[in-house]
Amino acid sequence: MQALPGFRDFLPDDCAVRNYIFACWREVARRYGFVEWDGPVLEPTELYKKKSGAEIVDQLFNFTDKGEREVAMRPELTPTLARVVAAHEREFKKPLKWFSIGQFFRYEKQQRGRLREHFQLNCDIIGETNLAADIELVALCIDILRTFGFTEKDFVVRISDRDFWIDFLRENDVSPDRWDELLQAIDKSGRETREKTTEKLGTLADPIFSILKGGGKSQKLDQLVDGLRDRGLADYVAIDVGIVRGLAYYTGIVFEVFDRAGRFRAIAGGGRYDNLIAQLSDGAVSLPALGFAMGDVVLRELINETAHAREKLETAIAQSRKIDVYVVIAKEQRRPDALAKIQQLRDGGYRVDYPLTSEKIGKQFQTAEQLGARVAVLFGDEWPQVKVKNLATREESLVHHAELLAHLQA
Amino acid sequence: MQALPGFRDFLPDDCAVRNYIFACWREVARRYGFVEWDGPVLEPTELYKKKSGAEIVDQLFNFTDKGEREVAMRPELTPTLARVVAAHEREFKKPLKWFSIGQFFRYEKQQRGRLREHFQLNCDIIGETNLAADIELVALCIDILRTFGFTEKDFVVRISDRDFWIDFLRENDVSPDRWDELLQAIDKSGRETREKTTEKLGTLADPIFSILKGGGKSQKLDQLVDGLRDRGLADYVAIDVGIVRGLAYYTGIVFEVFDRAGRFRAIAGGGRYDNLIAQLSDGAVSLPALGFAMGDVVLRELINETAHAREKLETAIAQSRKIDVYVVIAKEQRRPDALAKIQQLRDGGYRVDYPLTSEKIGKQFQTAEQLGARVAVLFGDEWPQVKVKNLATREESLVHHAELLAHLQA
Repeated sequence: MQALPGFRDFLPDDCAVRNYIFACWREVARRYGFVEWDGPVLEPTELYKKKSGAEIVDQLFNFTDKGEREVAMRPELTPTLARVVAAHEREFKKPLKWFSIGQFFRYEKQQRGRLREHFQLNCDIIGETNLAADIELVALCIDILRTFGFTEKDFVVRISDRDFWIDFLRENDVSPDRWDELLQAIDKSGRETREKTTEKLGTLADPIFSILKGGGKSQKLDQLVDGLRDRGLADYVAIDVGIVRGLAYYTGIVFEVFDRAGRFRAIAGGGRYDNLIAQLSDGAVSLPALGFAMGDVVLRELINETAHAREKLETAIAQSRKIDVYVVIAKEQRRPDALAKIQQLRDGGYRVDYPLTSEKIGKQFQTAEQLGARVAVLFGDEWPQVKVKNLATREESLVHHAELLAHLQA
Repeated sequence: MQALPGFRDFLPDDCAVRNYIFACWREVARRYGFVEWDGPVLEPTELYKKKSGAEIVDQLFNFTDKGEREVAMRPELTPTLARVVAAHEREFKKPLKWFSIGQFFRYEKQQRGRLREHFQLNCDIIGETNLAADIELVALCIDILRTFGFTEKDFVVRISDRDFWIDFLRENDVSPDRWDELLQAIDKSGRETREKTTEKLGTLADPIFSILKGGGKSQKLDQLVDGLRDRGLADYVAIDVGIVRGLAYYTGIVFEVFDRAGRFRAIAGGGRYDNLIAQLSDGAVSLPALGFAMGDVVLRELINETAHAREKLETAIAQSRKIDVYVVIAKEQRRPDALAKIQQLRDGGYRVDYPLTSEKIGKQFQTAEQLGARVAVLFGDEWPQVKVKNLATREESLVHHAELLAHLQA
């Protein structure tokens, strides 16, 4: 029996990578003053239909539960965020700076590298309309990637503004009921043929292509870049009005992060969704909001392909895995003494391992090396002294067992 | 809209408790040399049927996915462990000491305090028949609870041995096909009326009640207690042959952890399942194994009810939540300078927050206090000096902005 297609087993090596990614995400989000929260993995299907329309159901792991409820394994966090914030917003001072790390599920068509689950970091700021919040959010996204060891040569945040296009459509007297359709066409223009996009854009094709080529000008986007320049982060961003993001609920600044070489799908993406909380709470609560999500799958691939990020990961994992002390039991009659000492060491916070059953001394030292132990402590004929061997320097010393903890701390 | 019945939202306070519990679990498991792994949240339903019989399906969140597969949200980890170990056992040196922290789902009848999801720590040792492994596992379970601040006055590990009862049934010429039924009756004897149990046990009722009253004698259990005594942990256990554990797959030592006052359901439970990996892998791989699981729900309740454990949690959470520096922007023209410095501080690993928009100075200091900042750094008329205020001691000092990091480190 195997795992279901598109689902991963996390053997210890893979789990260590996952923990490393989570630790970096959490560490940087906290440096930015974000606090962690989470929602349920299973939600009413209606929550997702309400946000994304009925067609979302085709991509869901959804079912009818034993209580006849229509439920779905969460494909994303934002609807849950809107639900939770609408229910509890009075309990918190605005703006909220919230992050969450969790697993999400989509019934995707099976393709190479397309999984049906992934882990995602979500960072959101709720209750602030000022562009300063957009700058803070983009800076956080950049600093997370910097913490993985990536530089401005490895990735770029492409920033755009939906309002730029809304203004353009307004100036060209396009009626609002066509905006979504045209924004979708602009969003797809990089991935579809020029003919196909032209067909969709009609008479607006020429001016739009010319804007996409020229890059587009926007005071708001310039201000955003200036704000990042104040922080020394301007080299990590590029204005690119070709980024629109498919989802209809975005309202202002939107951004997507790509590897510079353009080999992978987006590493992260997000933007403003000032109307979504009101929409999902049927108008009960209206709060401006913005956020981004970063998945673990593309990130892992990019780390693997980027030498300095991979080294950083490998160092961190090797470090996190090491035990401190391996206890070598050279004489079985010393085992009770050894176990008493092991308990003391573990109580003192040391990571300690030892052979559960009688083993040859050479094999025990071999295990100590494999586990990356800093020292081996041998319980044998020297009792009440124990032999402490530093496995890096090969230095050995005899220490009275009562002095062992003090010796290790020195 | 609300979360589904039996599912929890984790607002920041709840999420902090969850993170604290996970951190303690992880910390102690690592001290014992256990390595972390995980499996998928969704598995083939067959995996659970194979282990627990078709009746398990009544308790599952199971459904048919869009590819016509029968799938279920995992109710427990052990079947996944058996699947993964059977597939990969050659890659690892035995014994494996593995732990996992994850979420599990059961469609339980709705009652007060009965959830449909919970988080669980699973710790397993695979590939060792020696009782030393059972002792190591029980010691780990005890030390995890000690790390939460519980003492021998707060909880007890009730240990038992299925082999004790198998020997008894053999001596009394009970045919093996009745063993499971009688073990179940013994397991339930504490929760059912004496009449009901007597009816189930028939002629064996009197000798069994007499054993349950007397406590039962077993050399293996005495050895287990001796092994824990070597570690100074004997006060945390009690031999109680009334513990059988309902699941049919246990083969030797079994144990359950209860609060001493007996107010809650079991905090943790586990035991040996030496035949399960062979059974689930259709005999492809046969490895002795043992493990336990500890859920977050009863644990949270017990922490809340136990003053010293609750204090420990509250201190840890308050500590984990604090930011290091709150930047007060007293003059808006200093904002770009402040942002450059905020970036430097965050790059240096400090947790830093600041007002996204212009705010009165008094309100900024109030926010600094609320966020538990160690220091407030004020950017104002003193520029290029900044005013550093220690929020605990109320001491203030003027520091040149270029010296700020050095000043904070001192």
